[in-house]
Amino acid sequence: MSWNLFPKRVPLIPKDISFFAMFAEMSNNLIAGASVLADLFADYHEVSGKIKEIRRIEHVGDDLTHSILTKLNQTFITPFDREDIHKLASSLDDVLDLINSAGARIAMYKITQPPPAAAELARIILLQSQELAKAVPLLQKNGDVLLHCMEINRLENEADQVSREAIGELFEREKDPINLIKIKELIEVLETATDKAEDAADVLETVALKNA
Amino acid sequence: MSWNLFPKRVPLIPKDISFFAMFAEMSNNLIAGASVLADLFADYHEVSGKIKEIRRIEHVGDDLTHSILTKLNQTFITPFDREDIHKLASSLDDVLDLINSAGARIAMYKITQPPPAAAELARIILLQSQELAKAVPLLQKNGDVLLHCMEINRLENEADQVSREAIGELFEREKDPINLIKIKELIEVLETATDKAEDAADVLETVALKNA
Amino acid sequence: MSWNLFPKRVPLIPKDISFFAMFAEMSNNLIAGASVLADLFADYHEVSGKIKEIRRIEHVGDDLTHSILTKLNQTFITPFDREDIHKLASSLDDVLDLINSAGARIAMYKITQPPPAAAELARIILLQSQELAKAVPLLQKNGDVLLHCMEINRLENEADQVSREAIGELFEREKDPINLIKIKELIEVLETATDKAEDAADVLETVALKNA
Repeated sequence: MSWNLFPKRVPLIPKDISFFAMFAEMSNNLIAGASVLADLFADYHEVSGKIKEIRRIEHVGDDLTHSILTKLNQTFITPFDREDIHKLASSLDDVLDLINSAGARIAMYKITQPPPAAAELARIILLQSQELAKAVPLLQKNGDVLLHCMEINRLENEADQVSREAIGELFEREKDPINLIKIKELIEVLETATDKAEDAADVLETVALKNA
Repeated sequence: MSWNLFPKRVPLIPKDISFFAMFAEMSNNLIAGASVLADLFADYHEVSGKIKEIRRIEHVGDDLTHSILTKLNQTFITPFDREDIHKLASSLDDVLDLINSAGARIAMYKITQPPPAAAELARIILLQSQELAKAVPLLQKNGDVLLHCMEINRLENEADQVSREAIGELFEREKDPINLIKIKELIEVLETATDKAEDAADVLETVALKNA
Repeated sequence: MSWNLFPKRVPLIPKDISFFAMFAEMSNNLIAGASVLADLFADYHEVSGKIKEIRRIEHVGDDLTHSILTKLNQTFITPFDREDIHKLASSLDDVLDLINSAGARIAMYKITQPPPAAAELARIILLQSQELAKAVPLLQKNGDVLLHCMEINRLENEADQVSREAIGELFEREKDPINLIKIKELIEVLETATDKAEDAADVLETVALKNA
């Protein structure tokens, strides 16, 4: 007779499942922010109202991030590696910070005519946010996280291409250096948001591979 | 009869306490640098002497950081998590680096008239440094670290506000693009120093919560 | 009679040695990229061909980085700390990314006359890459890694000096703000590459000290 002391699928210590719920909330909040940003550039009206809405959503994001990190510091057993929880929360927070940063630049620089690339980049950020929101719950179900990560990376490459072309063209066309500085920075902030979304995808990939 | 093999408060292996002394020295050195910076912008005379003094203090900071990291790599039992020691040393080092970076910008760009926001931001950096120096020893006494962290975060928000307004106003007022580039960068460097002070506070909060 | 259950030099679990081979490949690929960059600025002809070659090398580097990180996530016993493997791969990748970024700036900004400092900085990046490639295999042989790390840090200080002087001089000389923006950014990207090489050296130093 043999004893199976550790039957599969019956964990000895129940893992705290609600980190997943918190990350789901974070990624949905990110989609909310990215949607307003995409709408802002697609339809450049009621600009200050949309910027305020982004700021509000970013504050919600700050609170969610803080809750996850506080919970992390008070939890002994975590559903995946502590450092990965920390990195995932931070990178999701960074994407939303940069979305808000783009909004703040518009107000600070009184940008009345954003470049077409801004709308393209905001659309890419929204697509990445949607992919992130799809990938997060798959971590729990051992679903195919990697497919979504690959798409997020592909989108980041696309954003890179869009922003390089837009900045190259800006230097060709814009003769007013002060305006050039403003538009260049707006494009760079948006492009950096897509980098941070890729960072979040890298963490998801790491977690998926570790548990494969 | 029952044996208490692990009586509380009598650690089996004495923890190396002197990391606290080193962090105290680091945060006092940071106050020294932040004080010269605040004095520089409050009284814009003997500028190059003050910049040199900041550079000297920054070199001391580099040595202190290097000592902590070397000790960390050679120490088996640490008073709090290794990665938190690493992050705390790095972020305190970053604040002082950026203080020095602001000084270097003044020399490199031959800035003769710093904007009023520079004095405000330097004052905020000094206040944050003082809060950090108060919080560090509380780690050891289980004191109320979080209160100081909250104040440091509040100061970072204030710095954010100050720098956004100052940069917005700069774009309104300054018609010379080269001068605009110089002043904008000085403000951004100072604002980034307040971000790094917040990073240091976040590590302190993490350590305090883990040991709560 | 006494048993030596753990004879030295006969590890119970064989450590996966091929991480070293992968890091050797990464640092050789970095030298390849840095060589083309140094050649580009030393002899400013066939510029677009050289930029394309840098981009090709950077893609190879991306694949190598991805292989190391994938292997890391699938390996239980690593030859040195997981987080150090991650940081080393990331920082080596960052240096090559920035080399490619410098090439991309030249194309994007249509820079026809790079400043003399670009050649100097590219030469420093190449020297740092060569030192990194020498230090990596020494990790395995307990060789003197620290000497190479010190040289990499010295080179970073030199690059700092070169770039500050070059930017200071640029602000003196260049009256066209748009051209100033382009050249300033090129110098900054190159200087940041030397910072990332220093980050890689810091990881090597950490690993060497931990195993001392």
